[in-house]
Amino acid sequence: MAEPKQPDLMEKIVSLCKRRGFIFQSSEIYGGINGFWDYGPLGAELKRNVKELWWRTMTRQREDVVGLEATIIMHPQIWRASGHVDTFSDPMCDCLVTRKRFRADQIEPQSGTVHNYLGAVSSAALDDFLKTIECASQDFLNLTPLETKLFAATTPAQVATAVAEWARSLKPDGVNEAVLAKATAALQATVDHTAYAVLIAKGKHPEYARKVARQFYGERGLPRPRLFGERLEEVENSTRFNPDNGSLLTPPVPFNLMFKTYVGPTATEADVAYLRPETAQAIFAQFKNVLDTARQKVPFGIGQIGKAFRNEVTPRNFTFRSREFEQMELEFFIKPDEAIEAIHGAVATLTTPDPKSKTPEPQPNWGWQAWHQYWVEERVRFYEGIGLSRETLGFHHQTPEELAHYARACTDILFKFPFSKKDAQGNVTGDELEGIAARGDFDLSQHQRHSGKPMEYFDDELKGAFAKLDEAKKKDLLDRFTAVKRSDFTKRGYKPEEIEAKAKEAADRLSKGFYVPHVIEPSAGADRLILALICNAYREEMIPDSKGTPELRVMMKFHPRIAPVKVGVFPLLKNRPELVAKARQIFELLRPHMTVQFDDAGSIGKRYARQDEAGTPFGVTIDFDTLGEKPELLDTVTLRDRDTTQQTRVKISELLPLLLEKLR
Amino acid sequence: MAEPKQPDLMEKIVSLCKRRGFIFQSSEIYGGINGFWDYGPLGAELKRNVKELWWRTMTRQREDVVGLEATIIMHPQIWRASGHVDTFSDPMCDCLVTRKRFRADQIEPQSGTVHNYLGAVSSAALDDFLKTIECASQDFLNLTPLETKLFAATTPAQVATAVAEWARSLKPDGVNEAVLAKATAALQATVDHTAYAVLIAKGKHPEYARKVARQFYGERGLPRPRLFGERLEEVENSTRFNPDNGSLLTPPVPFNLMFKTYVGPTATEADVAYLRPETAQAIFAQFKNVLDTARQKVPFGIGQIGKAFRNEVTPRNFTFRSREFEQMELEFFIKPDEAIEAIHGAVATLTTPDPKSKTPEPQPNWGWQAWHQYWVEERVRFYEGIGLSRETLGFHHQTPEELAHYARACTDILFKFPFSKKDAQGNVTGDELEGIAARGDFDLSQHQRHSGKPMEYFDDELKGAFAKLDEAKKKDLLDRFTAVKRSDFTKRGYKPEEIEAKAKEAADRLSKGFYVPHVIEPSAGADRLILALICNAYREEMIPDSKGTPELRVMMKFHPRIAPVKVGVFPLLKNRPELVAKARQIFELLRPHMTVQFDDAGSIGKRYARQDEAGTPFGVTIDFDTLGEKPELLDTVTLRDRDTTQQTRVKISELLPLLLEKLR
Repeated sequence: MAEPKQPDLMEKIVSLCKRRGFIFQSSEIYGGINGFWDYGPLGAELKRNVKELWWRTMTRQREDVVGLEATIIMHPQIWRASGHVDTFSDPMCDCLVTRKRFRADQIEPQSGTVHNYLGAVSSAALDDFLKTIECASQDFLNLTPLETKLFAATTPAQVATAVAEWARSLKPDGVNEAVLAKATAALQATVDHTAYAVLIAKGKHPEYARKVARQFYGERGLPRPRLFGERLEEVENSTRFNPDNGSLLTPPVPFNLMFKTYVGPTATEADVAYLRPETAQAIFAQFKNVLDTARQKVPFGIGQIGKAFRNEVTPRNFTFRSREFEQMELEFFIKPDEAIEAIHGAVATLTTPDPKSKTPEPQPNWGWQAWHQYWVEERVRFYEGIGLSRETLGFHHQTPEELAHYARACTDILFKFPFSKKDAQGNVTGDELEGIAARGDFDLSQHQRHSGKPMEYFDDELKGAFAKLDEAKKKDLLDRFTAVKRSDFTKRGYKPEEIEAKAKEAADRLSKGFYVPHVIEPSAGADRLILALICNAYREEMIPDSKGTPELRVMMKFHPRIAPVKVGVFPLLKNRPELVAKARQIFELLRPHMTVQFDDAGSIGKRYARQDEAGTPFGVTIDFDTLGEKPELLDTVTLRDRDTTQQTRVKISELLPLLLEKLR
Repeated sequence: MAEPKQPDLMEKIVSLCKRRGFIFQSSEIYGGINGFWDYGPLGAELKRNVKELWWRTMTRQREDVVGLEATIIMHPQIWRASGHVDTFSDPMCDCLVTRKRFRADQIEPQSGTVHNYLGAVSSAALDDFLKTIECASQDFLNLTPLETKLFAATTPAQVATAVAEWARSLKPDGVNEAVLAKATAALQATVDHTAYAVLIAKGKHPEYARKVARQFYGERGLPRPRLFGERLEEVENSTRFNPDNGSLLTPPVPFNLMFKTYVGPTATEADVAYLRPETAQAIFAQFKNVLDTARQKVPFGIGQIGKAFRNEVTPRNFTFRSREFEQMELEFFIKPDEAIEAIHGAVATLTTPDPKSKTPEPQPNWGWQAWHQYWVEERVRFYEGIGLSRETLGFHHQTPEELAHYARACTDILFKFPFSKKDAQGNVTGDELEGIAARGDFDLSQHQRHSGKPMEYFDDELKGAFAKLDEAKKKDLLDRFTAVKRSDFTKRGYKPEEIEAKAKEAADRLSKGFYVPHVIEPSAGADRLILALICNAYREEMIPDSKGTPELRVMMKFHPRIAPVKVGVFPLLKNRPELVAKARQIFELLRPHMTVQFDDAGSIGKRYARQDEAGTPFGVTIDFDTLGEKPELLDTVTLRDRDTTQQTRVKISELLPLLLEKLR
């Protein structure tokens, strides 16, 4: 659990986001829409800077990665191939009384006494029964003896017996047994034999449970129901009951998280399409087109930034889990390890990267493990480069149980958010910013299978290497490759009779230089990163004001690379045209090169404070010395550093290169 | 109509787009999805450059515009306020036989003979009839005499008469008139009295029409139908019939173009949401939040780039009309003219801008007309700045009939695409790239009305100005303002009894300094612009190859500002390590500053040709002179200009600044 202090911090951050125009609730004037958030002027700039930096780092600055910009709505078959149509779902269950829907895996476990019922009978049917056996209808008013008997019944026959006994008790003068048998049978036919249960806290009056149960049967169409077959049971940590009223929930049913729509003028089932739940699949679907046009050889990657949508049942933690979000994804295609081995004799052994030296240059003999490690390290360095130090990050290496069946490894990079929980040892582990998965050849193979279009890559070097291998080595390699494919195809649900042939065929293709590339997938959430950067930047300090009284200073300590505004330009006084004119000149000098804000409103301290809250790293003040009041300071300005509040005197002629250097 | 040459050109462009990785069909491996297109590596870079330039020009480089990034899915109420739920639709009609759906306003007009029918009777019913009057069922085989009679029938009574006459003709020995009357009445009851019509080309055999008509009644459940009440009619340019088979179409019904989905775990009507059909409404919905946080005063603008979706019935012209597209929209908020008049005494008169001088600086006394003209001019200059000359553009000033009821003016900026049609005078006018609309205060007022949240702006200067106005002037101004509001509220369907009070209230608020800002909306389509830039850049020339034989050269003449790759770096020979190493140095020198491609594959001519097709404006070749073969050329390279193919010798030390200058 988080400490009490932390939620307050999160509230302050949310409040600052709205107050300064970083993040607004979507459609706020209409009461908002749950799980959707808009970026205001400062937020939009911050996000653009981060996305731009990702794109620069991951594609433009690399020779082995190209970009793609695909549509959000794609052919629905893509989501069959990827498995999203069948398995991208949350388990949902409904309260059997209120119909309220719950995510089954998020229900708080409950303990107490379960009242189980075997069914109910309606008072109206009892009424008819009484009429038939010629009892006065006021007898009906006292049903307690019957209900007590009914509670003890466990079979329909026992219900019949209970009713018959009760009838006899109502007619001490004797009852026409033939009539009674007929009436009992008629009553019997109206019984609702639906089992139901209610959980109540231990020691609570049973009537609480019975009331809910009567509500349940009542809504099934039994007026004033009488319960039967009550059986009590103690349970611990059950998630089968509605925490609000104790009612039994429906069994969990998968609820697909993809938003569905219809494309074209007729909204039939054939026109169903989905809003993409991830950007990755478009990369796989366009793999061949990119390969054919981009003049790249494996290993190479395709990067994409774009919106994705998930109909989350419970959006939460501000923008962290929202229904519309942006991803920054790279699919980096590599050779299978067996191809590396054929070409280079062996796959490179892993060495732990040293955070203090440069990331090692990729080597031709790297297998998937080295590439996976490389990308984890590259991505951590990306985060460091925009101000998230290693101390603010965490790592989660998915366990074999957590991994998807096709995945070989997945490392999550976490950030310690104010809402992040502590583990059993009391350490904050953090919440996921990015997952770096080694996905084998699952994705491309699936699209090859579903589209019937080959997704193979022809590797000239591999073909040559196989030609030179001795037969024993070749056999050994291909046998191992066949075994891997056999296992893959089995896990993917291929028909048993085709597995062996397909595995052999894949090995045969490999020996001719063809394979479906494997993939390492660094997949980051842009909005989560923005939230991490905002949480990381938020600072409060007490600093003395001009009179020496301590005053709260709120500052957003963004890395200059991503700060929405880079420089504030301030004429010392608004009403001195010569100061304003000079400040304007400096503003125009800087503006073509960076985002600059001109501000002449209020005291200089107020203006600094405003820029501190916006996270502007530098402030340039034009004062009378700039104009030459002290001749030796002519054409100099003060440059204020947001983090230290230090001011230094800088020549105007040196200002632009100095700032450009600081912003690199 | 376009000339035959032009579709060829478009085909060549589409083919180049796929071949070089500018634009791919979305989900191509699954057969594509109509109306959706992906940007490949070169296309993604081109689009990024264009969007980045729009953002820079329209927001970062302006002090009076800030940015916003809102969600695609917003509160559905927004689309009620904007009018999209009620009116954003195309008229659709269905073929009554094939059920194929057509956009009513896009049906090619047809001329010919319409065969109208009053209804049909089934052969099965005729069979029963024959049995009743005791005719052999083979008589049934010759129905022509009956059908001829039936064609002439125009009322049910005449149908009955025709059938009776036919029956008599079948039984020359006489017929039991009582039986006949009964049988005729029974037959009568089975008649389908649904009128229907088929259009066939003049002179075509009537049987063509009858066949379609029989199909129509057949599908309504009449087995082997016999038509009656045939009436012929000549029509000119009718759009009521299916051009494929001549069948009558259903009357046009509005089909809403918004993609619909459901938000949340229960897909009930209360959860309906739409994919935004435009980015503009988010700006209006967040107007107050931005106003409260961005420290802007009216006039100011809010810009946004983002995806929008329209379920177009007939996507066409490559990416020009697609179902998922990106918009670049600015909403520029201005004071109402009456406020300008109150403050400045008069609204500035319009002067025609001179394309050769700078756009005039905005003035405080500008009314909506000056602002509208200013933005049209600014936007044209933006297009000029990325290579679309004024000659390639066209303008369409919407006529009062074309304008939306609330709009005061709208100027469309057009581009002359290869698929653009000619007008009556034989001139290509072009298709819309951007619309610049003066929308009054419609949008903000509608959101104020639907959300109940005030969208007013408080204008200190206006309040002060009103305080100083003499009573006559004040009255005159407010009377005119009241008249405008009265007219607005009437057009917007306010209840008659509230119009006067609301108009007066608005005038009263104005006199206190409050108003709902008016808006000028320059709204551009990013994908259309990309297509225009690609069409504009496409060049074919015959140039002599190394042996002097003319060879086709295809070049994409992109403006350097937007070109996907700025510079190609080529070592003259791949197998000379010293050339490659030097070329690598130059590559590393340029790469931090621009998108560079290193290419050492194939002859230098092939490499130039590849970059020409990609639209790379500059090529740098490293040869033996670079290494000092001619000592005076040591550390120089050749810089090739794509457009002229001219090569100049440049010192490496001067290369970066020279290129940066050319890319500005």
